[in-house]
Amino acid sequence: MSCDFLALAVPGVQKLSPYVTGKPIDELARELGIDPARIVKLASNENPLGPNPRVLEAIAAELPELSRYPDGSGFQLKAKLAERFGLRPEQITLGNGSNDIIDLVARCWLAPGRNAVFSAHAFAAYPICTQAVGAESRVVPAIDYGYDLNGMLEAIDEQTGVVFIANPNNPTGTWIGPQALENFLERVPAHVLVVLDEAYIEFAEDGELPNGLDYLDRYPNLLVSRTLCKAYGLAGLRVGYAASSPRIADVLNRVRQPFNVNSLALTAACVALDDEAYLAEGRRVNRAGMAQLEKGLSELGLKWIPSRGNFLAVDLGRDATEINAGLLREGVIVRPIAGYDMPTFLRVSIGTEAENARFLDALRVVLDQ
Amino acid sequence: MSCDFLALAVPGVQKLSPYVTGKPIDELARELGIDPARIVKLASNENPLGPNPRVLEAIAAELPELSRYPDGSGFQLKAKLAERFGLRPEQITLGNGSNDIIDLVARCWLAPGRNAVFSAHAFAAYPICTQAVGAESRVVPAIDYGYDLNGMLEAIDEQTGVVFIANPNNPTGTWIGPQALENFLERVPAHVLVVLDEAYIEFAEDGELPNGLDYLDRYPNLLVSRTLCKAYGLAGLRVGYAASSPRIADVLNRVRQPFNVNSLALTAACVALDDEAYLAEGRRVNRAGMAQLEKGLSELGLKWIPSRGNFLAVDLGRDATEINAGLLREGVIVRPIAGYDMPTFLRVSIGTEAENARFLDALRVVLDQ
Repeated sequence: MSCDFLALAVPGVQKLSPYVTGKPIDELARELGIDPARIVKLASNENPLGPNPRVLEAIAAELPELSRYPDGSGFQLKAKLAERFGLRPEQITLGNGSNDIIDLVARCWLAPGRNAVFSAHAFAAYPICTQAVGAESRVVPAIDYGYDLNGMLEAIDEQTGVVFIANPNNPTGTWIGPQALENFLERVPAHVLVVLDEAYIEFAEDGELPNGLDYLDRYPNLLVSRTLCKAYGLAGLRVGYAASSPRIADVLNRVRQPFNVNSLALTAACVALDDEAYLAEGRRVNRAGMAQLEKGLSELGLKWIPSRGNFLAVDLGRDATEINAGLLREGVIVRPIAGYDMPTFLRVSIGTEAENARFLDALRVVLDQ
Repeated sequence: MSCDFLALAVPGVQKLSPYVTGKPIDELARELGIDPARIVKLASNENPLGPNPRVLEAIAAELPELSRYPDGSGFQLKAKLAERFGLRPEQITLGNGSNDIIDLVARCWLAPGRNAVFSAHAFAAYPICTQAVGAESRVVPAIDYGYDLNGMLEAIDEQTGVVFIANPNNPTGTWIGPQALENFLERVPAHVLVVLDEAYIEFAEDGELPNGLDYLDRYPNLLVSRTLCKAYGLAGLRVGYAASSPRIADVLNRVRQPFNVNSLALTAACVALDDEAYLAEGRRVNRAGMAQLEKGLSELGLKWIPSRGNFLAVDLGRDATEINAGLLREGVIVRPIAGYDMPTFLRVSIGTEAENARFLDALRVVLDQ
């Protein structure tokens, strides 16, 4: 006798559709039978600067220790984060990317009978992690693709465990300002954990977006999630962190796998956090690239959602499937976001000047077909 | 108003005690105020050969791509595993170490009202991952520190989702032979997933222990979990895998975080799997070290549990806390296993000849105090 292990799985998992990642360059190269070097990938909001040379140096120095387990407590990295951001180490939870943080939050405070509140067009990890633990996703309609914070407050009830807020939001790039955030935090009931996902916060100009860390002391139900995979250029290594009250961090650290962050990521993150110049250069390239794309899209007569991330959601005005397929044939990978209920949009990451130009050229070719 | 986020956590998490890792060298160096180079760590069953130079070369070549996300599908590594072990890629689930595999299994097939069956003195991840999802741990008493497989079969009922079998078992080093495994698999009900954890299988001599992969075709409820963190020397990078039916793999991959395995681990694992010489040298060093430790322990009048892993559980005949503290003062880190209900034991990993000698010398000093 044989059993169906899908039917035997817990109900939340049975209904789960996994996250769809940006298509890797190698995969498209295999499919098209072309040289990977000819492909431009603007699909995963990766840092076009490439990795920080100082970080690579630190990694190389760590390689001889690779047969040792990582420090499961993340002592050095927590000390660095604490110093850098005025936190105490016991406020920090390290994650295998910030996806891990979101997943840990769901496992700790969501379950069948509880719900998570978040916006339409918000990061796919929120519904996935909520579904995986069998909780209900309360998706609040957006207003012009931005968050309806009042609507989100209204959706909260006694069974709400978590509210997810991404600032800026992926894949739309929309954002909320300091006053809107503060008003929201004031009104969220104390039993609801607010996850403020700041994966892209470093791309914003100073003062334009609220710094979630500034609110931790006043709101004990706030958790700020961040990553070193975007602005810090460490996507391949996987490292993120949460800042919260020590109590919340204690709970998360119980469920966290003891060696969730690898040794090289721990080392790399410590060095990356100290290099302001790399961050500043990333911001500069992002600003210039954003202007380049906006100009190019404008010339093509296209609209996009104003963004404070390192990506733009471009509205093609019709189902984007064919246009995406055309771009792939041109060797340009962007991200279709029909899964985000945005079937007429493509999300394009801001790349180097040359990559952005390749994308715009390819888009022109495809639109002309 | 402020709320207690421990009390708000799901019940399983509230009662959870996190995994206690082997003390890192840096941590002891800080505590003792001594040079890390003077410390010997035989606490985490790490490979004393150090990392494979071929692997380090491949990692170095991959570094320029570090700002890119890993291939979430693990295409290359799955192809390599499939080729190496006669599997199909769709049978494979990649994990951030095999701890991740165990955790994924628990999330898919355990929940409140279900139970997991495993032996006393079995790997701590089993009760932790079971508790984290609110399921019941059915711990079956051991016989002479080895598995009572009949007792485990008797403990299984309709609510059993998973049985965990480690072969060899950590921290005892005990093992089951091919016939015992087969008898067991024959008798486990079809609705129960058998997780055969072969984290240490590569240290065994050919034919001595069953190769779990050989049983996959006959037992659709079998999952074999393995890691590259032990014999392959990649503990710091975190990479493991499960082999199972495609159906089981499909379920696990729904819950798996899309980028759970980092880019360098994916690359390193492909190279490591091809280097038989490194594995053979590891086995040779392990055999020699095992003999060296057994001789030394014998001379000290101590007993140990015969082991097929890269570690020995040594019975001090009295509470081991003081002896462990003494070893730490001597700069030698081993693993106390009171948490495994073995308070008179210390688990010592098999190191290089010099490390083993340092351990034996330190143990002699401490026992003489």
